[in-house]
Amino acid sequence: MPRQITAFSNPLIKRVRSLREKRHRRDEGLFLAEGLRILTEAADEGVLPDYIFFARDGANHPLAQRLIADVEAKGGEAIETERDILSKLSGKDNPQAVIGVYRELDTSLSRIDRSKADIWIVAQSLRDPGNLGTILRTGDAVGAGGLILVDDCVDPFSVESVRATMGALFTQKIAQARWPEFLEWLRAGPGQLVGTSLKATHDYQAPRYEAPTFLLVGNEAQGLPADYEAECDLLVKMPMLGKADSLNVAVATAVIAYEVLNQRRAR
Amino acid sequence: MPRQITAFSNPLIKRVRSLREKRHRRDEGLFLAEGLRILTEAADEGVLPDYIFFARDGANHPLAQRLIADVEAKGGEAIETERDILSKLSGKDNPQAVIGVYRELDTSLSRIDRSKADIWIVAQSLRDPGNLGTILRTGDAVGAGGLILVDDCVDPFSVESVRATMGALFTQKIAQARWPEFLEWLRAGPGQLVGTSLKATHDYQAPRYEAPTFLLVGNEAQGLPADYEAECDLLVKMPMLGKADSLNVAVATAVIAYEVLNQRRAR
Repeated sequence: MPRQITAFSNPLIKRVRSLREKRHRRDEGLFLAEGLRILTEAADEGVLPDYIFFARDGANHPLAQRLIADVEAKGGEAIETERDILSKLSGKDNPQAVIGVYRELDTSLSRIDRSKADIWIVAQSLRDPGNLGTILRTGDAVGAGGLILVDDCVDPFSVESVRATMGALFTQKIAQARWPEFLEWLRAGPGQLVGTSLKATHDYQAPRYEAPTFLLVGNEAQGLPADYEAECDLLVKMPMLGKADSLNVAVATAVIAYEVLNQRRAR
Repeated sequence: MPRQITAFSNPLIKRVRSLREKRHRRDEGLFLAEGLRILTEAADEGVLPDYIFFARDGANHPLAQRLIADVEAKGGEAIETERDILSKLSGKDNPQAVIGVYRELDTSLSRIDRSKADIWIVAQSLRDPGNLGTILRTGDAVGAGGLILVDDCVDPFSVESVRATMGALFTQKIAQARWPEFLEWLRAGPGQLVGTSLKATHDYQAPRYEAPTFLLVGNEAQGLPADYEAECDLLVKMPMLGKADSLNVAVATAVIAYEVLNQRRAR
């Protein structure tokens, strides 16, 4: 049976609310995800939250009822609360009807099995949670295995990132590594490292991409560092007919990722 | 010679600051753009601001000095001010070194000459300024003529939109129209209306796109209304191999726009 919490001062509410800050997420090893859609996608992947919070008037949806039952069956806790407490937890005026508190996923590189997919996306110093979410959604769409975050990227478990992934956080694998660690891991197995660069001489449609393809994109403002580009097996660029000198990083990732996919489905 | 303003209470400062709100932009017919990069791109397109504000310590860059001279030569006004006043104008803690106040561009459909480009992007009820900016940058890159905003879209002249376009606001034409008005204009000349839809039966790489191609994308959450889809000459979709049912709208736009471009450069 769900327990009820109606007081802002309840210690669990305070603790969950604190997960909006990175240091508390790190200390607790927990993060927040909001909304029936994202929680259901997570459940479909076999991932259930430790806690599920729901508003009294918002749990009538059959998906919500199933989630609540599943969480309780797995030993998690379901908590019935008020809309304004959900607002406080999510930081939004119009909170979603359900909020889940999840155990942080293991993001060590060693958990990535490169043989599981023909495309992997690698982002270096990606800073914007919207771009991270958009790239994960694109990865899901092109059948990528996951996203490897290199160097200091935005936290994939921040409320903003989780929201932007729209559930792809749970369908795509995520790893985090420093560049030397990533390179060592990469070169210990098969894989073509393809960087996007304004300095590239190859048009992105010219090469035949080899599986598994690791698509490497750089920071929103700076692009890839020159010494990272030097480690790539291939540097490619998209035609740019206009005045601007760069595309949005999530757009560039998607255009190349679909080219890789198109080459494979054309075979 | 630039005049100096150092008081927050100065009427011009108050007036310019008010341009961060849509109703004041509409009343004044003016909008703000920030940063040397964007202002220089605008100047390269022959568009100069009515006013240019700069920080005493930020106008040493030769591009800033040229901009200031050009604005004054064209009868505009250059105003030397303080960093914290620039902060107040832009709403950012770290304001750019220059801020321009521009006359709103005419966004009537009648100003669009479709013969000028082979690709035009049409977005319906687009709500996110980041997506608007990303789509304009993509349009610039693929050689599109511009972006036609249909129905209730985010204001392209909001500070957030202008920032996200990174200068493409001045290199791409922008029009605004309601759907019936757009359709009437479209059908009065040549053009293939291509909608993106989950219900499409055509893979996006199957058809030969006809110039000028009008790529129509829908709202971030709802996609295109069914009756809008019914008006399209062609509905296409991208392969989606994963669990998610949609791509980010700017990503979908870019993937199709590059396909159209690739078909033409392959000929």
